Amino acid sequence: MEKEYDFELLNRYLEMRDYRSLKEALAKENEVDIADFMENLPQDKATVVFRTLPKELAAEVFSNLPPETQQIIIRSITDEELGAIVEDLFVDDAVDMLEELPANVVKRVLKNAQPETRNLINQFLNYPENSVGSIMTAEFIDLKKTMTVSDAINRIRRIGEDRESIYTCYVTDSRRCLEGVVTVKELLLSPDETVIGDLMERDVITARTTEDQEEAVQRMMRYDFISMPVVDHENRLVGIVTVDDVMDVMEEEATEDFEKMAAMAPSERPYLKTNVFELAKNRIVWLLVLMVSGMITGGILGKYEASFAALPLLVTFIPMLTDTGGNAGSQSSTLVIRGMAVGEIRPADFLKVLWKELRVSFIVGVALSVVNFIRLVIMYPGNELIALTVAFALLATVVVAKTIGGILPIIAKSVKADPAIMAAPLITTIVDACSLVIYFNVAERLLKL
Amino acid sequence: MEKEYDFELLNRYLEMRDYRSLKEALAKENEVDIADFMENLPQDKATVVFRTLPKELAAEVFSNLPPETQQIIIRSITDEELGAIVEDLFVDDAVDMLEELPANVVKRVLKNAQPETRNLINQFLNYPENSVGSIMTAEFIDLKKTMTVSDAINRIRRIGEDRESIYTCYVTDSRRCLEGVVTVKELLLSPDETVIGDLMERDVITARTTEDQEEAVQRMMRYDFISMPVVDHENRLVGIVTVDDVMDVMEEEATEDFEKMAAMAPSERPYLKTNVFELAKNRIVWLLVLMVSGMITGGILGKYEASFAALPLLVTFIPMLTDTGGNAGSQSSTLVIRGMAVGEIRPADFLKVLWKELRVSFIVGVALSVVNFIRLVIMYPGNELIALTVAFALLATVVVAKTIGGILPIIAKSVKADPAIMAAPLITTIVDACSLVIYFNVAERLLKL
Repeated sequence: MEKEYDFELLNRYLEMRDYRSLKEALAKENEVDIADFMENLPQDKATVVFRTLPKELAAEVFSNLPPETQQIIIRSITDEELGAIVEDLFVDDAVDMLEELPANVVKRVLKNAQPETRNLINQFLNYPENSVGSIMTAEFIDLKKTMTVSDAINRIRRIGEDRESIYTCYVTDSRRCLEGVVTVKELLLSPDETVIGDLMERDVITARTTEDQEEAVQRMMRYDFISMPVVDHENRLVGIVTVDDVMDVMEEEATEDFEKMAAMAPSERPYLKTNVFELAKNRIVWLLVLMVSGMITGGILGKYEASFAALPLLVTFIPMLTDTGGNAGSQSSTLVIRGMAVGEIRPADFLKVLWKELRVSFIVGVALSVVNFIRLVIMYPGNELIALTVAFALLATVVVAKTIGGILPIIAKSVKADPAIMAAPLITTIVDACSLVIYFNVAERLLKL
Repeated sequence: MEKEYDFELLNRYLEMRDYRSLKEALAKENEVDIADFMENLPQDKATVVFRTLPKELAAEVFSNLPPETQQIIIRSITDEELGAIVEDLFVDDAVDMLEELPANVVKRVLKNAQPETRNLINQFLNYPENSVGSIMTAEFIDLKKTMTVSDAINRIRRIGEDRESIYTCYVTDSRRCLEGVVTVKELLLSPDETVIGDLMERDVITARTTEDQEEAVQRMMRYDFISMPVVDHENRLVGIVTVDDVMDVMEEEATEDFEKMAAMAPSERPYLKTNVFELAKNRIVWLLVLMVSGMITGGILGKYEASFAALPLLVTFIPMLTDTGGNAGSQSSTLVIRGMAVGEIRPADFLKVLWKELRVSFIVGVALSVVNFIRLVIMYPGNELIALTVAFALLATVVVAKTIGGILPIIAKSVKADPAIMAAPLITTIVDACSLVIYFNVAERLLKL
């Protein structure tokens, strides 16, 4: 069960400088846990632990360390040791690491890699951020369609050690174009003499290096793949995307959407590791933008000063109106933005969403208005017209808020803007403005102010 | 590449009643795509397509259909055919299906399953919702530690066909207790005569049947597992969780958090398939709760009627103050709630978060206040004291909002309440109330109202 964070024994050996016992204990631990353990140690101790690691674990632990600790380690080891680690890393892990390190450290790392590794890493570093190319790995098993099952299994046994994923094998022709896929499960369940060309699935679902990673991830989830081949513009197989990368991308994208919908610049690093100024910077810009929205609302409110000077009670219902409008709008926009993110709602569903939100908002608006009307009649007897004004403004606010909240993200997406970023400020501004204008106009007419 | 939604050919064969060509074309399609195609057909046509499916595809397509279409199919086939499908389904897919179907259909399905299958399904149906037991599958490969690698590979070749995941094999003793794991990769890369007991990893990270699925999923993500063994309270191996289930759970949990943070009751079904009344119901309750918050704010506002009757200009800054407070608070609560959901922030980090939010909110608050003060001095010359009042209230609002937004979710979690649900209404109420009290108190003193 929970074996995480059970580092007492390791700490004790480290304190006692009993490096032999430490080495034996480390060998039994998972590389993710060791990385966690090292992350919380002081620099010199982390270096000691790393040097004590069994050789075969070193690269794996290294790829799980945060960039700060990686830098410390890189500074403390010889060029030869560094070269060995870089060779042991899978290309995608090496690229992830290099993207976070300062330029002088990157130079030193690349200098100590073998020429082929260096070329591969350089090529991968060139794929644009968030592209499939930036998350793929180059270590896959390739087969030829003329091989038999036993040839294929022999090849896997020979070259499998260095491959990140061996369970799906890719069949390529002499020009490295992808011809089909075959899984290890199919190989194991077929007679030894079966020819790969007869066994392989020819209708392969692929991703392109330049495609957005989110789209590729959605495709993998749709088909429940544990890996997907990545081809270039000439259909040549250049890499694969594996399911662990997919889970990371899913988590990142969801976190990014959360941040955007809460009106923040998305952050690259986890909360506890981001410094205070970075956090403040990410938040100030959008708060300023949204403050403009509050100013517009204030400006509109200013036009009705005469009304609320004549009847100050009107003011006390404003927070309820604008809050409810904001909440109703963000309910709709959240559902639609999330629906688009997981691929359920497409821009073509515009009319469906509009019609649905119109009906939902009417039901919700009527329910809220009735409850409010009853409450106001009880709390302010003799002010039935005010109660009616508030109830009517509330209904109109909810309908406007939900309709705009539902369709604005779709409009944003179809003009290639980011729905999650556009939603909050625009909806708040429009809904607040509409609800105040409706409220005071109804009030002026009904209450003859 | 994108081969989804290319159903023209299928449609044409269906129109022409050319069932032979249809069958051939279907055999080339992915089961997920066929399910998609069937979902959009009228009932009678969907039934025809299903009957035309090659036998080996039928169960796979069936498990990808939405419950409505599954019911239509179940009604149109014989008991014998139904029995065959149930036997072909993996247990977790069968359980997923049965949970969505009406009781009389469930009865018919279970009646037509083999006794062992029926027992297994019944057992799985009893695991609580959101528990690991409810998402696990019973089809895994079990080995004995006395086997050699070639024994193990032979066993996989013999029984692998019916197993959902063959790539991680589980070593159990005579009482079915879990002793270790070994991957197919390790088997393939080891000499034939190696004994499994020497090869297997003994330190196995497991999940319990009764554990919350979200915790198990976080553990799998942490270690990048493609499957994880599930044991009962006596450490007996009862099932495995596979990575495709994990991705579904991740997506569901993120969607649920989005819904809760936008103040909605989480919905079981995708947006476009949920009917209008269901959607309205999910939204009304929380809007009513939040309306109470608006009323409290209104009540507080009522106490200062004399102040804003004397100086109506004060009213026009209220939306900006409360909006900014709400936005600033939801930035902090979103980061913390998400941080807890992905396992980065723990209740023990309470003081770290508090200290961080205090500093961030001070920086953000000062920046916004300065911008606002300058704007107000320019726009309302001669009213420097009002500008100062607004600026000071704004700073106080941002600090209160961010501090409460940061720590409230942690408090909610440590008293076992749902952070995502608690956040919105409490933060809005507290922040709105505080900011208005501060605003008017500062105004009364500074402006001598």
